[in-house]
Amino acid sequence: MRQGIIPTIDYRKGRVLIIDQTLLPGEEKILELVSPVAVAEAIRSLRVRGAPAIGIAAAYGVLIAIEEHLTRVSAGTAGYRFDREEGLVGGEIVGVDPGPLAEVVDESIRMMSETRPTAANLFWALDRMREAAVGSDAAELCRNAAGAAFRIHDDELRLEREIGEHGAPLVEEGCRILTHCNAGGLATAGYGTALAILYTAHREGRRFRVFADETRPLLQGSRLTAWELSRRGIDVTVLCDSAAASLISSERIDMVLVGADRIAANGDVANKIGTLPLAVLCEKFAVPFYVAAPWSTFDTSLQSGAMIPIEERPADEVTRFAGVRTAHEGIGAYNPAFDRTPAGLITAIITEFGVIERPDGGKIACLSDRARR
Amino acid sequence: MRQGIIPTIDYRKGRVLIIDQTLLPGEEKILELVSPVAVAEAIRSLRVRGAPAIGIAAAYGVLIAIEEHLTRVSAGTAGYRFDREEGLVGGEIVGVDPGPLAEVVDESIRMMSETRPTAANLFWALDRMREAAVGSDAAELCRNAAGAAFRIHDDELRLEREIGEHGAPLVEEGCRILTHCNAGGLATAGYGTALAILYTAHREGRRFRVFADETRPLLQGSRLTAWELSRRGIDVTVLCDSAAASLISSERIDMVLVGADRIAANGDVANKIGTLPLAVLCEKFAVPFYVAAPWSTFDTSLQSGAMIPIEERPADEVTRFAGVRTAHEGIGAYNPAFDRTPAGLITAIITEFGVIERPDGGKIACLSDRARR
Repeated sequence: MRQGIIPTIDYRKGRVLIIDQTLLPGEEKILELVSPVAVAEAIRSLRVRGAPAIGIAAAYGVLIAIEEHLTRVSAGTAGYRFDREEGLVGGEIVGVDPGPLAEVVDESIRMMSETRPTAANLFWALDRMREAAVGSDAAELCRNAAGAAFRIHDDELRLEREIGEHGAPLVEEGCRILTHCNAGGLATAGYGTALAILYTAHREGRRFRVFADETRPLLQGSRLTAWELSRRGIDVTVLCDSAAASLISSERIDMVLVGADRIAANGDVANKIGTLPLAVLCEKFAVPFYVAAPWSTFDTSLQSGAMIPIEERPADEVTRFAGVRTAHEGIGAYNPAFDRTPAGLITAIITEFGVIERPDGGKIACLSDRARR
Repeated sequence: MRQGIIPTIDYRKGRVLIIDQTLLPGEEKILELVSPVAVAEAIRSLRVRGAPAIGIAAAYGVLIAIEEHLTRVSAGTAGYRFDREEGLVGGEIVGVDPGPLAEVVDESIRMMSETRPTAANLFWALDRMREAAVGSDAAELCRNAAGAAFRIHDDELRLEREIGEHGAPLVEEGCRILTHCNAGGLATAGYGTALAILYTAHREGRRFRVFADETRPLLQGSRLTAWELSRRGIDVTVLCDSAAASLISSERIDMVLVGADRIAANGDVANKIGTLPLAVLCEKFAVPFYVAAPWSTFDTSLQSGAMIPIEERPADEVTRFAGVRTAHEGIGAYNPAFDRTPAGLITAIITEFGVIERPDGGKIACLSDRARR
């Protein structure tokens, strides 16, 4: 794992390494995923989660699918493995038909795309893999696919540092920041989006206090965000999601800072359930509401947030906890994983291109031009 | 226990009977509390909870303290016990000095008043006990105290039915109601405040759908409200507190209906943490926001909600669940039990006197006059 970041996700010779986030903070366990099915399961069950992180995981899932196919059609070899420095390990690719290989790529992209519906980064990463994984022969296809997957990961880490640098000036000495869910190293390549801003401000020597919404039902705030921040020596206090209003309404919060799972062309943001009420409270009590996200989270094919699909998750995430029933047998639950915050409630979106104040369709179209360059 | 109501609290010959709400919905266990210390512990640890219910419990706690004293100073008798129909059981009170008895009353009132700081009904009930528990001799003091305690309980049940009748017309056929925490039979003498309205509408034959916020940290919504409503055959769905915004913002809720723990002279309402954000969302998305409470919940000695003391509860209610840590060792939590909703966000308060639309200081002063009559 690389220095100074959380070991959220990495790839090493045929293995996708993730820290199992369902076990945090109790246990820090690194899982080695060796098949595309295992990667898809890990995304679906939130062992790896966070829009940028699942984009990277899915790209590596496609890579592992390719390796699996190469090894299968080249019986007798020790198996093919990609390596970040050495390229393809396991011998030359000879006599592999590129047709069936391309089908394997398509199939693995389909499998990955069906894991979770809301995060834009997942589909963005898979689109990049689809475009890259071509070639006049199997060897070229493999080289291109591996290059794309590693680039998605490397780019993401660079962008996170840029988001951190653009956003850090917003965090003044003594600032009290409220965040929701986990938009930190565990949600990304290891540094974060919303939390990258806090990490950069912290590195620059400023002191501030963070309030982390626990984020029901799966408690990513108390389990993951508090864990990340306290590991870095940042002052963090957890609270029930419903208690944020009492802080915001009484001038005890200077800014709310969250990540995003998908941002529409007009600036509407889908993010973890519970983001919208924070934005409404910020408007009511005149507290700035910031969203941090890389360009890969934007989906300009969707005109507005209303078009963003919202994942509904199983009722028992709400009606059970740690094996204990929290509602009587037979009681149903409404359990959407995300909500939609209208652009009009957002003070600024912080991207790798800078701070986009009062985001709207025009400003996002400009970003889109810039991203294409 | 009486018919048609939940066995939240009752009194029988020296025993305060409560259903242990910390065990619901898993187990329906009736506790028999036989000392004022046990009653105070039950209130503090939320075995009995809800503003009206703890008022009744505290009144009976004073009664038990009196019995305890009588039995102590009359060694050799089988013990004195009050009875709802028979009066004092255990013999005539002879030669009991009223001075020490009055001190026992004062001491038990002090003990009960220190259990929880926010609910007005607790202090209201204790004030009534203090005023009533006087007499020219011990026997008269005892009769008066017992009369007051039974009256507090009986009146409460009548008021709840009146609240239900006044509020029921608001619940139209097909209505979708969101509620928070538990303002039902379990919070009261057995019928409810907010939920009394739903029970009355249900009895009148209207069909409607209830969404019950789970209400972190102690999950009174999923554990208690869902249990109560489903027992009566009312359609109920639980949701995380943070998911209410997604329903309210998308026109899937017709009204929000909650109880109250204390209402100031200007109409500001203290209620379970998470009430304020619902009221702000209702204002933003033009959904009616109703509060149901008996007059005993009003505290006209306080000019505004800012003066209502808010109980802060232990951090581990947030950082642990069912014995499992939800945040890393050493992480602190902000855990207020209540928040304050400004009167300006309240569509109406439903009391035993009727529906008070757009509550303000003038309207509440009129109620105050009426309550005095």
